Amino acid sequence: MANFPLAQCRIVMVETTHAGNIGAAARAMKTMGLSQLHLVRPLDYPSVEATARASGAGDILQNAVVHDSLEGALADVTWVFGASARQRTLPWPCVAPRQMGDMVAAHPADGQIAVLFGREARGLTNEELQLCHYHVTIPTNEEYGVLNISAAIQVICYELRMALVGAELPPVEGHLIQLPAVHWDEPPADQAAMEYFMEHLERVLVKARFLDPRYPAKVMPRLRRLFMRIQMDKTEMGMMRGVLKAIEQALPKGS
Amino acid sequence: MANFPLAQCRIVMVETTHAGNIGAAARAMKTMGLSQLHLVRPLDYPSVEATARASGAGDILQNAVVHDSLEGALADVTWVFGASARQRTLPWPCVAPRQMGDMVAAHPADGQIAVLFGREARGLTNEELQLCHYHVTIPTNEEYGVLNISAAIQVICYELRMALVGAELPPVEGHLIQLPAVHWDEPPADQAAMEYFMEHLERVLVKARFLDPRYPAKVMPRLRRLFMRIQMDKTEMGMMRGVLKAIEQALPKGS
Repeated sequence: MANFPLAQCRIVMVETTHAGNIGAAARAMKTMGLSQLHLVRPLDYPSVEATARASGAGDILQNAVVHDSLEGALADVTWVFGASARQRTLPWPCVAPRQMGDMVAAHPADGQIAVLFGREARGLTNEELQLCHYHVTIPTNEEYGVLNISAAIQVICYELRMALVGAELPPVEGHLIQLPAVHWDEPPADQAAMEYFMEHLERVLVKARFLDPRYPAKVMPRLRRLFMRIQMDKTEMGMMRGVLKAIEQALPKGS
Repeated sequence: MANFPLAQCRIVMVETTHAGNIGAAARAMKTMGLSQLHLVRPLDYPSVEATARASGAGDILQNAVVHDSLEGALADVTWVFGASARQRTLPWPCVAPRQMGDMVAAHPADGQIAVLFGREARGLTNEELQLCHYHVTIPTNEEYGVLNISAAIQVICYELRMALVGAELPPVEGHLIQLPAVHWDEPPADQAAMEYFMEHLERVLVKARFLDPRYPAKVMPRLRRLFMRIQMDKTEMGMMRGVLKAIEQALPKGS
């Protein structure tokens, strides 16, 4: 069975205060392949600030539908998720964004899904939250969990894309396989040690006339890629530096 | 084995142009529980704009470490991921953010992880990308995939939190179990139909003296929660409206 189409997912922003956030939301949506933006009583819209922050997503902004009521924005919607930072007085079925993605993927393909986002300062009202089938809560730091609204929309759209389209990256290649834990009985070498090693290696390769500094081609980037991949531990790094030092001293002087 | 600690993950921003993006990045980091922000040659920092956009994450901004060189920001780091939108001339091991999260979770706990973010307009240079063990690419819309830098940092920090801390939501309750597919042979009722139904139900309950409009308590929100959860299809919705209509007509007049 095919996944629910991303094109049938809409973002509904309720009484957004700052126009810039509407623009940033449009951009967040478009990067993830969503296109339907619905605005309920935006305070300052249309606006130059919204257009600037939308960057390459001006079309999403231009096609945004403005509503007088939230009910209007939801009339033809079959499943409503309301973004909420916390549990309210009347507990409601609540899911994390990743669960929401899995649930939407399995929704009948002829439906329409909406995710609601409330005011920057106060979120959605209890009445608005009760129009939702589910609340969706982004897991956050207990000490400070207030995401910017466009950042929250980016996370939600990202999870929808991951669930409905997937990562679309090339398959993991052989060299991405994790080294088994037994290789990690020593702490890993840090990046400073890696830089000293790469400089030392380059010096030795020049002295050995393997590398001509006038025509370096991609020798050093290729060797860097190789040695970065190995993820040497501190002991191995010390040993490799010893190898280089020995070669260096064994090479004829002035070569 | 415990996951790699979130406190040992740093975000490195290279030659960021707009101070507002640094502030927004600090906020994105703090909401996800990261705290180490490193800035390499920021163009306009410190700045009032950065502080404003940081909102409640002013401490992250104040503790940010400014470096003259990327090498300096990475010296004590054991694993480097570079955010990159596309494959470069020399292909490098490349992962999606979710893979990155799983990999970081399994990294030895005494290490330091860095994720690099380049300039708003041009990203990281080839030389900077070659300092990385892996490139990390956020899956995007093929037609427009340019995330705002702070939005990209939000997604990366979100995946790190998901991998290292988890969703921390209460376990899914019984009523979140998906209805089996056989219940969906009819298309789902939309939200407008739901609103008509809820209004009809309320009217009938008042007429039947189950509900006293002067003392509504939480009767209607509780009934809404119940009927939202059922996710009626169009046929079921029509049937329920028929039930209400029949009851309405059967009730004594003027009651």
